[in-house]
Parts: sequence; structure tokens; C-alpha cells
Amino acid sequence: MSRLFPRKLDLANGAVEMVHGSGGKAMAQLVAELFAAAFANPLLDQRNDQAAFDVPAGRMVVTTDGFVVSPLFFPGGDIGSLAVHGTVNDVAMAGAVPLHLTAGFILEEGFPLAELARVVTSMAEAAREAGVAIVTGDTKVVERGKGDGVFITTTGIGMVPPGVAPSGDRARPGDAILVSGTMGDHGVAIMSTRENLGFETGVLSDSAALHGLVAAMVAAVPDVHALRDPTRGGLATTLNEISHQSGVGMALREADIPVRGEVAAACELLGLDPLYVANEGKLIAICAAEDADALLTAMRAHPRGQDAAVIGRVVEDRHRFVQMETRFGGTRIVDWLSGEQLPRIC
Amino acid sequence: MSRLFPRKLDLANGAVEMVHGSGGKAMAQLVAELFAAAFANPLLDQRNDQAAFDVPAGRMVVTTDGFVVSPLFFPGGDIGSLAVHGTVNDVAMAGAVPLHLTAGFILEEGFPLAELARVVTSMAEAAREAGVAIVTGDTKVVERGKGDGVFITTTGIGMVPPGVAPSGDRARPGDAILVSGTMGDHGVAIMSTRENLGFETGVLSDSAALHGLVAAMVAAVPDVHALRDPTRGGLATTLNEISHQSGVGMALREADIPVRGEVAAACELLGLDPLYVANEGKLIAICAAEDADALLTAMRAHPRGQDAAVIGRVVEDRHRFVQMETRFGGTRIVDWLSGEQLPRIC
Repeated sequence: MSRLFPRKLDLANGAVEMVHGSGGKAMAQLVAELFAAAFANPLLDQRNDQAAFDVPAGRMVVTTDGFVVSPLFFPGGDIGSLAVHGTVNDVAMAGAVPLHLTAGFILEEGFPLAELARVVTSMAEAAREAGVAIVTGDTKVVERGKGDGVFITTTGIGMVPPGVAPSGDRARPGDAILVSGTMGDHGVAIMSTRENLGFETGVLSDSAALHGLVAAMVAAVPDVHALRDPTRGGLATTLNEISHQSGVGMALREADIPVRGEVAAACELLGLDPLYVANEGKLIAICAAEDADALLTAMRAHPRGQDAAVIGRVVEDRHRFVQMETRFGGTRIVDWLSGEQLPRIC
Repeated sequence: MSRLFPRKLDLANGAVEMVHGSGGKAMAQLVAELFAAAFANPLLDQRNDQAAFDVPAGRMVVTTDGFVVSPLFFPGGDIGSLAVHGTVNDVAMAGAVPLHLTAGFILEEGFPLAELARVVTSMAEAAREAGVAIVTGDTKVVERGKGDGVFITTTGIGMVPPGVAPSGDRARPGDAILVSGTMGDHGVAIMSTRENLGFETGVLSDSAALHGLVAAMVAAVPDVHALRDPTRGGLATTLNEISHQSGVGMALREADIPVRGEVAAACELLGLDPLYVANEGKLIAICAAEDADALLTAMRAHPRGQDAAVIGRVVEDRHRFVQMETRFGGTRIVDWLSGEQLPRIC
């Protein structure tokens, strides 16, 4: 490409310019020397405006998520790894095996190329680790003050194994409710970096790809009824979504919900409830009561599910309430998140 | 949903608030009363974080595009219809039949819900007209001054008919180069709205879905070698991309390239070359010389290809130059776009 780009992109000291979104030579260079170099794979290397590949007949899933997390870099991850994990997880929550990812970048004029390169490298590593490739993408640039460094929208596709069909409308009275680990780590990690909060918790984001855990779970219990990752709005909101979709209630036991001591302490300091704080590497599973032991055993045997626990059960309730027996023996309603607790958490 | 949302969203006077991105009740209401209502279809109505559907075995394509066009509304379209057309077209340029779309929205705090509703309605109409459904999506909100009203990232998937395999690396010396219509309409329509230019051309954007045209083309000539829509960077840049990918040169005839009189006049006034101005409803096709008549006939028989023309041919050239015989009989090199001509054109 030397005729086309006589000077290499200055990844150390350069910045995003409007010309990088023009569709012309500068954009081609940014794509070639940064994105294509980091994400290199045979499909992306087709260098068309789309990736083409063969698929077998079967059940496919597609999911899209935008990422606007602030700050871009946080303890345990960054917007790049998060954009991979978040979308891989939404594919996995259908019980599916992720096939491919796509990535759309919206860059702000003036954003340092060195920071963009850090994000892209992290994204490439997360994709490699998850065993999925970023097969096509797009880059746009907006003027200074019309964006915020970088926004990333990722789309994932995957194939669902036969006999597997988890869905938010399949929770039935009597079902067991499980979580794969501690609640609230991601949200607290993000908050620990926000200047106006200025505290150091030592808590890392749990940002991680969960498709390996899900594969182990559906191998043990193919008929898992529902899977969902409790991201924005946390465990409480996600359980309310499922209750609403399935037309059921839920009965939780607070003492059984795993929360790290540091997370509980930080939440207390900030007046937050960890049940409403976002997670990026945890899942909720709902299955028939008789499958709960097998599912819990499969989860605990996987590195991403070591702290898995049964936290309650699905009950009949025409009001679709999520209720919780508190540590003090009382019962309270765990409602949807109704305000804005943590802006731009993902 | 009346228990959940006692008051309806105020689509007439309301505005986007940070709480609409929280993952909680306000976001659920925005999704239910605006997005899900406008895009309603059985897959979206699954209300999971992903859409699941059956696919046959075959060749699939996936493509992603971000849209940041400014202004949001322009003669002949808006960011909503453009986000559908642009992605449908990238699917179609693989010779594929579009199956489904996904949409990720990044909203700016304070953006009027009435404008968002206009965009979403237009998007839903464009999808309906194109015969594709928006099957899943995502909404994020950023603070005032960290975005610009609305950015939309759409992803499209489609299936390629057997025997069809257009690709930018398949242009061969001797091949014919065709375009489906007039060049530069979209870019000039956008520019006519920009305040600091302040002129009225009467030119409408050509924004349109081209998969119907492509279906007619591949039915006539299944072995079309390359298809690409000349968006950012225009005809000139897109032909340079293909020359580069295929390792060939191109010889164009300026007199054969269709350009509307008003577009040519506006470009002259602004010191622009219409060959570098974006299109959103036109395509370039490259095919074997012996197939050119059949392809041109098929294109002209379709409403989106009435002004189709053969504009030149592929030649051997180790420098991969795109050259053009000018109206005055000379020859000049048509290089890649090298500056930023029209920021945020799509």
C-alpha cells in the first residue's frame, strides 16, 4: 500500500480528523493501518462493504448494542473489550454459539489516535479470546463537541443448538432462579473512576464473555427456560422484565444473592442498592426446579460461574411483582429501576 | 402496560432525558411506545435482547453502517430512511436478498421526542417499503453536548443466491463499468440545506433501497463481477477502491457519466467535482463485456435504473489508475478523494 499511503498514520501523536470520515484516502488509511491490522481475519480481509460466509440451516440469533461508557478506560476493562463482551453475551443469552461480530465506530474530531489504538487493540484481544472475529465495520467522524471520543456499536450473530430455546417469556411458577456470580461489580468499578466520586474501591469490572459458561449450561440442561444478563438496571430490573414478559411473580431471598463485601460497602456509601447496579459478566438463569441442581453444578464447574447461586423461585402473581425476603426476615417489593442511577455505565 | 406506565410518553412536547438510557422503567417506556410501536414485527415482539429466527443453509452476508448525517432532515429523506437504505444497499451490493435489520440509537439529552418520532416513523416506513423488518435494537443516551441529536447504526443480514458472488476484487481487464443513474444527487441535496451555503437547488437526495434493482440485475447476469454503491467519496473514490482491490486500471468517458444539470451547476458554484459527491441510491456494476448489454437492459427496465449507462471499461494497469477521457478529448487521472469535501454526508 506504499503508493497509496506514502506516510504511515501517526498512531503515537496523531488525532482523529474530519478527513478520517470522508470516505477517501485518509479514511482508507485509518481502516487499513488501525482497524484492519488489529482485527485481521479472512472475512474482514475481503475488504468489501459487507462480509460473506456460509451458514448451515438452523436457528440464528442477531443482537445489537451501542457502547457509550464514560470513562472509556476503567478498572477491569475499557469500551473496546466491553463492546465485544456485551454483544457476545446478548448472543449467548439465546443459548447460542457466537459466529461473528461487526463494529461501527463514531469518532470525535480531536480524539487521540493513541487512545483509539488502545481501544481497538483491547477490542481485538477480547474478540480473539472469545473466539469470534470482527468481520466488517464502519467508521464515522463527527465534529469536536458533537461526540465524546468514541462510541462503538457492535452486532453479533450466532447459531442456537437444536432443542435450546431460552426466552424471557418462558419463566413458569415453580422454576428456580439462579445467578452466575456476584452482583454490581461493573457499576461500582465505573463509579470508582468518576472524578466527582473520588474513591478507590479496588473493585474491577466483571466484564467478560459468557458464551463458554452458557455452552456448559445448555449441555447440562438444554431446556433452560430463560437466560439474561443483568446489565443496565441490574438484577432487579432484569428480573422485572422477565416477570413482565412471562406474566409471573418472583420470590427472592436476599441472603442468597452474592454481593462482594467491597461492592456492598461502596453502594452503602453512595446510597445505592447493588441489585440495581449493572453487571457485564454475569447472567440470570431460570429453569425447572428439578433441573436446578444440575444447572448449578454445571455453572460452578465453570470459571465464570464459581460463585453461582440459587437466589429464589418463580411464583404465580397476576401483579407480576418481584418480591424479596430480606436479611431481617421481612418481605419487600423489588421494583423496576425508576430513576437514572448511573448514567453511561455501558 | 398500564400498571407499568401510568402516563403515556409525551411525544409532542417531551425531550430525551438521561433516564431514557438507564435501562429502567423510562427506557422500557420509550422502547415500548416509540420504537416497538413503530417497528412492530413478530421478531422484535419477542422482546428479548436478541432476535431468533430460522435460516436455510447458504451464503450469508452481514454489514454495518453508522449514520451521523447533518442536518437530520434533508430534501428527499432523513437520517431514519437513510439508515435503512444505506444498510439494505450494502447487503444488496453482495448480490444478496436482505433478511433483517437491527438498529442502535445514540440519543443526545434534550433532543425533542417529536423529532425522534419523525425519524423513527420514517425509518419504519423505509423498512416496510423495502420489505425488511427491524428485528432488534438498542438505545443509549449521552449528555447534552456529547452527541448531536441522534446517531443511528444499522446492521443488515441477507442471503446470497447460489452462483452470485460479486466482489471488489473481481474486476478484470476488458470488463464493462456501468452506473445505475445520475451521480452526486445526495451530496448536493445535503449541501443545499447547510446554512452557510444557503442556496436552494431543488435537488432531492437519491436515497433509496437498491435490492430490487440488484435482484433484477443478478437474474439477468448472475455472474456480475462487482457491485458497489458510491457513497462517501463518490464514484471516483469507489472506482479507485475497486481498482486497488482487483489490481487493475479503469478507463472512463466523462461524456457517458450521467449528472443532472442542477447538480453540475451546484457543483460548479461550490468548486466541487460531482464524481466525488456522495450517492445513496445508485450503484456501480462491473461485468464481462459480453454481459454488458443484458445487464444494461435489465437495469433500465427497473425504476431505480432508468438512467443507467456504461461509463467505461476495466484495463490492465499495474499502477491501478482510474483514468478519464474528458469532454474535451484529453485524459486525466481520477484519483482517490484526498481531503474532506463534505463532512457528515451520511
